[in-house]
Amino acid sequence: MARRVADAGVMLRPHLKTAKSADVARVATAGQFGGITVSTLAELAYFLDAGFRDITYAVGIVPTKMTAIERFMARGASVRVILDSVDAVGAIAVRDGGRDKPVPVLIEIDCGGHRAGVRADSETLIDIAKAVHAAPGLVLDGVLTHAGHSYHAASEEARCAIAIAERDAAVLAATRIREAGIPCKTVSIGSTPTALTDIPLDGVTEIRPGVYVFFDLSQARLGVCSVDDIAVSVLATVIGHHREAGHLLVDAGALALSKDISANEHDPHIGYGLVCDIDGKLVGGLYVGDVHQEHGFIRCTSGALPFERFPVGSRVRILPNHACMTVAPYDEYHVLDTQEGTLSQWSKTHGW
Amino acid sequence: MARRVADAGVMLRPHLKTAKSADVARVATAGQFGGITVSTLAELAYFLDAGFRDITYAVGIVPTKMTAIERFMARGASVRVILDSVDAVGAIAVRDGGRDKPVPVLIEIDCGGHRAGVRADSETLIDIAKAVHAAPGLVLDGVLTHAGHSYHAASEEARCAIAIAERDAAVLAATRIREAGIPCKTVSIGSTPTALTDIPLDGVTEIRPGVYVFFDLSQARLGVCSVDDIAVSVLATVIGHHREAGHLLVDAGALALSKDISANEHDPHIGYGLVCDIDGKLVGGLYVGDVHQEHGFIRCTSGALPFERFPVGSRVRILPNHACMTVAPYDEYHVLDTQEGTLSQWSKTHGW
Repeated sequence: MARRVADAGVMLRPHLKTAKSADVARVATAGQFGGITVSTLAELAYFLDAGFRDITYAVGIVPTKMTAIERFMARGASVRVILDSVDAVGAIAVRDGGRDKPVPVLIEIDCGGHRAGVRADSETLIDIAKAVHAAPGLVLDGVLTHAGHSYHAASEEARCAIAIAERDAAVLAATRIREAGIPCKTVSIGSTPTALTDIPLDGVTEIRPGVYVFFDLSQARLGVCSVDDIAVSVLATVIGHHREAGHLLVDAGALALSKDISANEHDPHIGYGLVCDIDGKLVGGLYVGDVHQEHGFIRCTSGALPFERFPVGSRVRILPNHACMTVAPYDEYHVLDTQEGTLSQWSKTHGW
Repeated sequence: MARRVADAGVMLRPHLKTAKSADVARVATAGQFGGITVSTLAELAYFLDAGFRDITYAVGIVPTKMTAIERFMARGASVRVILDSVDAVGAIAVRDGGRDKPVPVLIEIDCGGHRAGVRADSETLIDIAKAVHAAPGLVLDGVLTHAGHSYHAASEEARCAIAIAERDAAVLAATRIREAGIPCKTVSIGSTPTALTDIPLDGVTEIRPGVYVFFDLSQARLGVCSVDDIAVSVLATVIGHHREAGHLLVDAGALALSKDISANEHDPHIGYGLVCDIDGKLVGGLYVGDVHQEHGFIRCTSGALPFERFPVGSRVRILPNHACMTVAPYDEYHVLDTQEGTLSQWSKTHGW
């Protein structure tokens, strides 16, 4: 991703909602300008404690969260918030007692995902820009969009088309705001699938991909990475053999793997994850076919299950469908450096 | 559930994998014998710290976890483990240095769910019982089964049939072990849907339901409870209106609600949860139709979405599909006593 932003001439503001880890954030921001993106107030507090000072909180802001934002800014951080309505501007403008520094605001643009945001060609966009520009305690920093629908792109062509639409929506929105006489510095786009195309990014100032720090089966099936690129797995222990029912049981189930099965959209034989041996090598045909709370059912797409190879007590690694969902509940990462032969623990946050 | 066990003449060993909370456990064990069930070593450690001393770890045991079990037993706890193969018996028998107290073992019986366990009428059952009875450092305590397939019962008749099969499998297994000359004290069964039938429980010594402490939409759709009985919800804030796409956005998504959509098996208009107002009253037709990591999309089964009633910044409560999945990642419960007008925080554990 560092090479991509260098080639495209934009800044990299990685989305740490995936890894939720300061150690990962240090790797991801090395050689970059140091800004990051988060999706919860818990992440915001955690990364501030870890020394990060330029953070975009990329979930629509509400008044009840402004006290926390102001507290974080009082600690010297620059915290950008996002919104997509004139009502929200009024709700987070200074109500009483002033504000030491104005809070920088990004207007969220809908580039086709239809989750949140206003259209780049709408009148509402200009209304919001004017409202932010005029509001006490706020300053318009720019526009932000996220092409989350790129996760469902059926081909590389479709993915590139979404990437172009994402870029064009953000650039158009910024251009229209500037034409209305309002400064609009930041033009922020990004998702891992759209970031890893080679379209030119003229007019864009930064990208915010997240899942690229680990990759996952969903990204592999989209063609964004290979299965070998996946950097995170769930280490599980075989807790039983059920020869009659035709599965190996492991102690990683719905909570340990998540119930996200998004990669099955592209390949129905992924289930809740593909199974590797302890060294991280795929064991052909093995996948987690079902999950209960703390039980995973390993099945085989063809042929006999290798019961002898995996006795009770042996270990496997399970590759995630969607890394963001799978890693979220864990308290730390166990990081294996096979070249150095070391095992380290990397911190992370969780919750809200 | 207290009334059910009193009527049936059995003991209640609630499964705390649902609530993962000592405060909930104290309510659930009040007036009972005090034993509980857990599904992770993290829960085991947490409940021991909270003073619980009679705990069944109801996920197939493996050798690598025995060090922890022995450490817990050295602290004065009685920790039962479960297994379903002769191999597992050999693997957890005393290997070196002895063991102060033998570890009590329950043999897991498959009563029709086909997740784990041996058949009650199998020769393997007796082989395992003999192996445990003969193994150094182990003592056979009894048999255990769980009719998890009761969650998919299409009618009350089907649910009762599963409850009868669950009971009969456990009782048959215990009878056969005793007939082989081996003591078999504990006959442990249970899931919330099978526990809340009125079949006699002759021969059973204890039940292990879990989700009844909160209930959820899945249980309501099974007919085990009403929606009004559901005691837990996710408090979320409206972060945006998307009138064109037809949804209200809230800041509770795939992580806050889980991606469990099990209640949709019985009612396709539940999505990721039904929506209540701040007082916990269902708002007719509103449900969470889609989720992203930290975004929930509230849609309406019929009629217009009540945008005016729920402005940006207002709050809603979302009822869970499957309480065990939804509450797992949280660090605590906020407990509202509407009669006393108090708000308390109850502790919980998470992770592994």
